[in-house]
Amino acid sequence: MGFSTEQVVEVFKKGFPESRAFIESVEPMKATMRLPANTKHLRPGATVSGPAMMTLTDAVMWVAIIGEKGEKGFNSVTSNLSINFLSRPKHGDLIAKAEILKLGRRLAVGEVRLYSADDPEPVAFSTVTYVIPSD
Amino acid sequence: MGFSTEQVVEVFKKGFPESRAFIESVEPMKATMRLPANTKHLRPGATVSGPAMMTLTDAVMWVAIIGEKGEKGFNSVTSNLSINFLSRPKHGDLIAKAEILKLGRRLAVGEVRLYSADDPEPVAFSTVTYVIPSD
Amino acid sequence: MGFSTEQVVEVFKKGFPESRAFIESVEPMKATMRLPANTKHLRPGATVSGPAMMTLTDAVMWVAIIGEKGEKGFNSVTSNLSINFLSRPKHGDLIAKAEILKLGRRLAVGEVRLYSADDPEPVAFSTVTYVIPSD
Amino acid sequence: MGFSTEQVVEVFKKGFPESRAFIESVEPMKATMRLPANTKHLRPGATVSGPAMMTLTDAVMWVAIIGEKGEKGFNSVTSNLSINFLSRPKHGDLIAKAEILKLGRRLAVGEVRLYSADDPEPVAFSTVTYVIPSD
Repeated sequence: MGFSTEQVVEVFKKGFPESRAFIESVEPMKATMRLPANTKHLRPGATVSGPAMMTLTDAVMWVAIIGEKGEKGFNSVTSNLSINFLSRPKHGDLIAKAEILKLGRRLAVGEVRLYSADDPEPVAFSTVTYVIPSD
Repeated sequence: MGFSTEQVVEVFKKGFPESRAFIESVEPMKATMRLPANTKHLRPGATVSGPAMMTLTDAVMWVAIIGEKGEKGFNSVTSNLSINFLSRPKHGDLIAKAEILKLGRRLAVGEVRLYSADDPEPVAFSTVTYVIPSD
Repeated sequence: MGFSTEQVVEVFKKGFPESRAFIESVEPMKATMRLPANTKHLRPGATVSGPAMMTLTDAVMWVAIIGEKGEKGFNSVTSNLSINFLSRPKHGDLIAKAEILKLGRRLAVGEVRLYSADDPEPVAFSTVTYVIPSD
Repeated sequence: MGFSTEQVVEVFKKGFPESRAFIESVEPMKATMRLPANTKHLRPGATVSGPAMMTLTDAVMWVAIIGEKGEKGFNSVTSNLSINFLSRPKHGDLIAKAEILKLGRRLAVGEVRLYSADDPEPVAFSTVTYVIPSD
């Protein structure tokens, strides 16, 4: 059953209290997050790093699972993550969109697309599989 | 530039003259193919095999590339194929839908979803990367 | 527990009676298969196709699982297969080597490397995940 | 041509001055890194996070490329990273071993295995592809 964006945000803050990224929306089998542009600590010319994009990809899929499972999904762990970096992100915010393609009792498989804000072409595209622990 | 479905079908028949699968449509950055149910040689209860699904996945991405590159894409070769089998296909036709997410001069990256006919839930979901040879 | 090469060959022949590929050896958590060069039906210059390499990859991982699980592994199904084509295979036989990296009661994850015979550099390299059905 | 471990460490420190992980060895087409156990900021029971393991995987492949290309590899960027989490890491150091399977002028494809120190079974296993920029 679906959970509201507000409920999911509560769970997310519990799991990731220090995350700069935040949840923009949660819909059935989907979630969108935004990672604001990091204006500090960045060398001239630098944009979001590969690891930051992988972390965001991992997180937004977890959020989509929480949106379907609520607290039961809290201890879900990543089983596989396969990311394809398509192009260099622009300066600015990064948007992450997750879509769960298959949700079982114990497994969730989905895809995640990352976008530079205001750009319709994805900068990265991933498949993520999560294992959902039994109650 | 895009090529018409008819033009792509011509190229496909040249490359895969014995294929049971056929092209249903070609649109900008997309292609759809159908593999008719195989009524011969199948043991009772058997549906489309994993290798047949991988082959169809590989083919429909190639077709989408031909749709964009025409004959120049003929000698494109698969660089990576990553398939996730989500559920057992039903008896009947198999539909394959490819979407190119990034098309460069030398590289194409896209996703392919396979469906049992008349079923909106994908039975498999893949990422495919092709290398397009220089002229 | 491990099963002998002869026992695994018996099971393989039951599952794949028409396969041109054959098992060369089965060791703990490993299997090696050979696909003889196909001298018929091949256009001049053609070598093993991508789909044939994917099929062999899928098969050799299944064989490695049979080597560990015996008949209990017969109905194992591929969950994910991710293949990287590294270079064009040479004419001649194709060797496939599977190594199971993690074997649980219900899941097997491993890697497969494909080689042109007598060439130490792999032509393809894959990760394969199988789901092993409960008894 | 290969570069010595000391030379690679110099380049690594330039690229990742704040990394807690360090290079243990660099050999032809291979590299090993160690991420010391993080005794601070960790909640009771917590071990290395998925994102930390992905970051380490990405880094050790880059280090292996530097080992082969020297400074020419500095601006290499990750094209694909596919990680399979096999089991929960233990408390303690994490070891990362990269092996380049194919190294071209512009592309490197390899695998990375992560281990809990003193444990022969990998906790994660990845395929990583890097694009090496032209001079």
